[in-house]
Amino acid sequence: MKIALDAMGAEEGISTVIEACILATQENSDIQITLVGRKDEIENEIKKMNLHNVHFPIVDAPEVVNMEDSALAALKNKKNSSIAVGIDLVKEGKTEAFVSPGNTGAVMATSLVKLGKLKGVIRPCLAAIFPTFSGKRVVLVDVGANVDCKPNHLFQFAVLGSIYAFKALRVKNPRVALLNIGSEENKGNEVVVETFKMLKKSSLSFMGNVEGKDITSDRAEVVVCDGFVGNIILKFAEGFAATALSIMKKETRKSMWGLGQLLSNQWLKKLRATLDYAEYGGVPLLGINGICVVAHGASSSKAIKNAIMTGYRFSQTGINQNIENTLKEIQQRQEK
Amino acid sequence: MKIALDAMGAEEGISTVIEACILATQENSDIQITLVGRKDEIENEIKKMNLHNVHFPIVDAPEVVNMEDSALAALKNKKNSSIAVGIDLVKEGKTEAFVSPGNTGAVMATSLVKLGKLKGVIRPCLAAIFPTFSGKRVVLVDVGANVDCKPNHLFQFAVLGSIYAFKALRVKNPRVALLNIGSEENKGNEVVVETFKMLKKSSLSFMGNVEGKDITSDRAEVVVCDGFVGNIILKFAEGFAATALSIMKKETRKSMWGLGQLLSNQWLKKLRATLDYAEYGGVPLLGINGICVVAHGASSSKAIKNAIMTGYRFSQTGINQNIENTLKEIQQRQEK
Repeated sequence: MKIALDAMGAEEGISTVIEACILATQENSDIQITLVGRKDEIENEIKKMNLHNVHFPIVDAPEVVNMEDSALAALKNKKNSSIAVGIDLVKEGKTEAFVSPGNTGAVMATSLVKLGKLKGVIRPCLAAIFPTFSGKRVVLVDVGANVDCKPNHLFQFAVLGSIYAFKALRVKNPRVALLNIGSEENKGNEVVVETFKMLKKSSLSFMGNVEGKDITSDRAEVVVCDGFVGNIILKFAEGFAATALSIMKKETRKSMWGLGQLLSNQWLKKLRATLDYAEYGGVPLLGINGICVVAHGASSSKAIKNAIMTGYRFSQTGINQNIENTLKEIQQRQEK
Repeated sequence: MKIALDAMGAEEGISTVIEACILATQENSDIQITLVGRKDEIENEIKKMNLHNVHFPIVDAPEVVNMEDSALAALKNKKNSSIAVGIDLVKEGKTEAFVSPGNTGAVMATSLVKLGKLKGVIRPCLAAIFPTFSGKRVVLVDVGANVDCKPNHLFQFAVLGSIYAFKALRVKNPRVALLNIGSEENKGNEVVVETFKMLKKSSLSFMGNVEGKDITSDRAEVVVCDGFVGNIILKFAEGFAATALSIMKKETRKSMWGLGQLLSNQWLKKLRATLDYAEYGGVPLLGINGICVVAHGASSSKAIKNAIMTGYRFSQTGINQNIENTLKEIQQRQEK
């Protein structure tokens, strides 16, 4: 199983990506990683790290997409970026998946243009995973691919999110909920009210509307929203977790004559990992004719390793085939 | 300073509300509270609590609006609810403010019908306060009053939120940011892009777009969004804080041979208070011709006390007069 990994996108630098490679191949020897990026910089970094026995194939990509680059500009002006070259490897069948801790918008746009959509997909979407109250996981979809959505878009996000929860999280009949500002059927804006009707008629395990507080309350395994709302929540969670940790750190250091300080480092680290959605294996693009996983730009090597594992599982479980089959079935049912 | 307090809305029951009354009047003897609700039930509760020296005037309101009641149904079918009677007291000038831990939608709708809007206000909105990374505070507006918004609505939320931050949080020239999925000017949905242009031209201290993670990152004192997004964030924060605390509790108990358990109760309580937006004094309705503050239904007595203090400060600082003056100035400037 070959995976192309964007060596240039991590905020912490190339060394984090290399560490992630080592972790991933240690965890599963079936995984073969190809690094994509500036060859000389990657080789220098490996030398600096004194990794004499480590040999990953490197595909040179002289350009780097920054976090500030717009998706369109990256696509047009940086045709030899690590993102473009990495996705080409998938397109040419040289690797089965592409994993990047870089610019999400650029990965989205480039994969859409180069790989195209799966049959029946209207709009690809991004599926993020959050920890829940009971320690389980929930899929939030879409978290940023589609800003202005129509009801049939949200409906498809529900279908794609369900398949992802079933295949990747191994939840049978995942419960699907619609994110709203109240639980009643007539609540929310026009798009959400229409989507409710579509989901109610569908064969999904639709639980109805849920409020923001229920995203992590174990009421559903898939929560559906448009990319504007989803992205703001995803980012808010990140900021709020940091705020919570900062407040806690202060409290802990004050308490019990410094004993708190001893404790804090130990499990603040654990907590950070639990609250950080990025640690949960990156965000896959659902609906793309290929496998692309985005890890958070500020990811740790462990988070990037998890994103690699997500790409691996995505491929192993045949999610894309499942998406095409399911959408075909839905269409056939609607035509009857 | 007379404040009407809804005795029936708290999930924890009437006793929580009575405790809040005692706390508020102890903190500021200038405050005189009138309880509104089922007189016999309130009197019974005071007796049960053995509060022989406590005498709050009670105005009888035989009906109770539940959390499940729709705003419209409450308005139409429960004309003698504690919410309706309490807001009537403000309308008749018998009290200066109304504070309720009850159904937010019902308080909104009832106050809109009975008290009306301030001059120049298009749509009243709800302003919530969040703790920030550095321990300061940020106003998020709107958090649920307006589901479908136009640019001029969002623009007014920015104006109202700024006045609130200036008057209630005592921030001079509060920095205003627009909640979006990226910092670039052209990011986001159509409504947000248009709002950006309006804010850029205004005399507000506009910082541009911020992402979800910046709500609590001290980049602005006022963050503007529509009520759909704002409400979902407000509720998500609640659920996410509970999730964080639950995860932490487990981690703490496991660590350091039980020493963690000793620590946990002590500061988990503190942390809960810091993360719970409701503890920050309730959510005032901005733009209503009168003063109404909503506390979270699941509020503690301290949170309801804080909401009473918010109502008090709202009145003392003359926010409503300031809103009318500012909107008039903006209109005059636009006409020139």
